[in-house]
Amino acid sequence: MNGMTSATTGQRGPAETEKRDAIVRAALEYFGRNGYDRATVSELAAAIGFSKAYIYKYFDSKRAIGEAICARCLGAILAAAQASVAEGSSAADKLRRLFRTITDKGVELFFQDRKLHDIAAASSAEQWSTSIAYKAQVAEMLRTIIAEGRETGEFERKTPIDDVVRGIMQAMQPFMHSLMLQHVLDTLPDAQTEVANLVLRGLAP
Amino acid sequence: MNGMTSATTGQRGPAETEKRDAIVRAALEYFGRNGYDRATVSELAAAIGFSKAYIYKYFDSKRAIGEAICARCLGAILAAAQASVAEGSSAADKLRRLFRTITDKGVELFFQDRKLHDIAAASSAEQWSTSIAYKAQVAEMLRTIIAEGRETGEFERKTPIDDVVRGIMQAMQPFMHSLMLQHVLDTLPDAQTEVANLVLRGLAP
Repeated sequence: MNGMTSATTGQRGPAETEKRDAIVRAALEYFGRNGYDRATVSELAAAIGFSKAYIYKYFDSKRAIGEAICARCLGAILAAAQASVAEGSSAADKLRRLFRTITDKGVELFFQDRKLHDIAAASSAEQWSTSIAYKAQVAEMLRTIIAEGRETGEFERKTPIDDVVRGIMQAMQPFMHSLMLQHVLDTLPDAQTEVANLVLRGLAP
Repeated sequence: MNGMTSATTGQRGPAETEKRDAIVRAALEYFGRNGYDRATVSELAAAIGFSKAYIYKYFDSKRAIGEAICARCLGAILAAAQASVAEGSSAADKLRRLFRTITDKGVELFFQDRKLHDIAAASSAEQWSTSIAYKAQVAEMLRTIIAEGRETGEFERKTPIDDVVRGIMQAMQPFMHSLMLQHVLDTLPDAQTEVANLVLRGLAP
C-alpha cells in the first residue's frame, strides 16, 4: 500500500498524509456514488465540504485524485491477497488463494460496494502508474509462490520461471483486469477455478 | 457457416437466401463504416438502396440484421480456423493454429477492416444465439484436437476431457471474446503464445 501510494503522480504540496487521505476517502465515497467520469473537482469540493483551493493544494487534477483512489483500492486488494496467501498450506494452495482473493476483492471494490468502474476504466485506458505497479506486485507474489513450489518439489523446474510467471499472469488476466472482469462476473467462481486447475496441471513436475 | 446462419433469429419471409445475403452484405459495409448502435433501419435502407419494406420482408428488426452480420463474420473466422487446423503437423500445432487464427481473424474483422465493435458489443451484452453457437463450435474443434493428441500419446489422458476443454476455453477467452480482445491488442501475438505454451505444458503426458 505504501509503495502504491508513492507511485501516484500529480500529488503536490506538503506531505501532510492525513489531510490528503481525508480528501481521498471523501472523494472515494463521492465518486463511488456519483461516478467519476462526469464529476468535476468543483462538484466534488461542494459535496465533500472542502474548498476547491484546499483540494488543489494536495492534488493538481481530478486524475490525481482518481489515481490516489485507485492506489488505495489496489493496495487493499494486495493486502488481502497477502494475508490469504500467508495462510496457504502449499504452493498450489497459495497460488489459488492469490488469484481468488484478487478476484473476489476486485469484484467487491469495483462492482458491488461502489460504482468505481469508470475510475478502473480510466486507469486502464490511460495506463496509470498505479495499475502498472500493482500488476508488477502481483507478478512478484506469484514468482515467490512458484519459487517456493519448485524448492519443495511441488512444481516442475524445467520451464524458465519468467515464462511461467508471464503465462499465468496472462491466463488470469480476465479475473484481474477491472475492465475484463465485468465480462466474466456471471461465470465466477467456476471459470477461475478452471483456469487455476489448468495452471496447476502445467506446474506439475 | 451454414449452421451459424440458421441459428440466427428474427429472419422471416421466404428462404430467398441470395436476396437476404445481398442485404446482409450491404448492411455489413454500411455498419462497418458508420457504426451499428445509432443507425436506424431507415438510414440503412436509404444508404444501401433498398426500400425499408423490402428489408423488413427479410428481417424483423435491426438486431436481426446485426445477428446475420455477426453470423457471417464468425462463420468466416471458423472457416479460416478449420483451414489452418487442417494443415497442422501435430495436435499441439493444431491447438496453436486454432487460437492464433481465431485471434488474428477476430482482430482483422472487428478492429481493422471494419468498425464492428458495437455489433460485437451488442452480441455479447445481449447473448445473441450466434455467439453462443460460435463458442460451442470452437470448443468442439478444440475437443477433437485434444482427443487426437490423447490418441497419439502427445497429450496426457488422466484429466477428464471436459475439464481440459473448459479450462483452455477460459484461458483463451481474452483472445476470442470480441470485447476483451480490445484490451489485449497491444500485447499480441506474444500474450497468446504465452498462454498457448502454458496450456501445452498442462497437456504434456
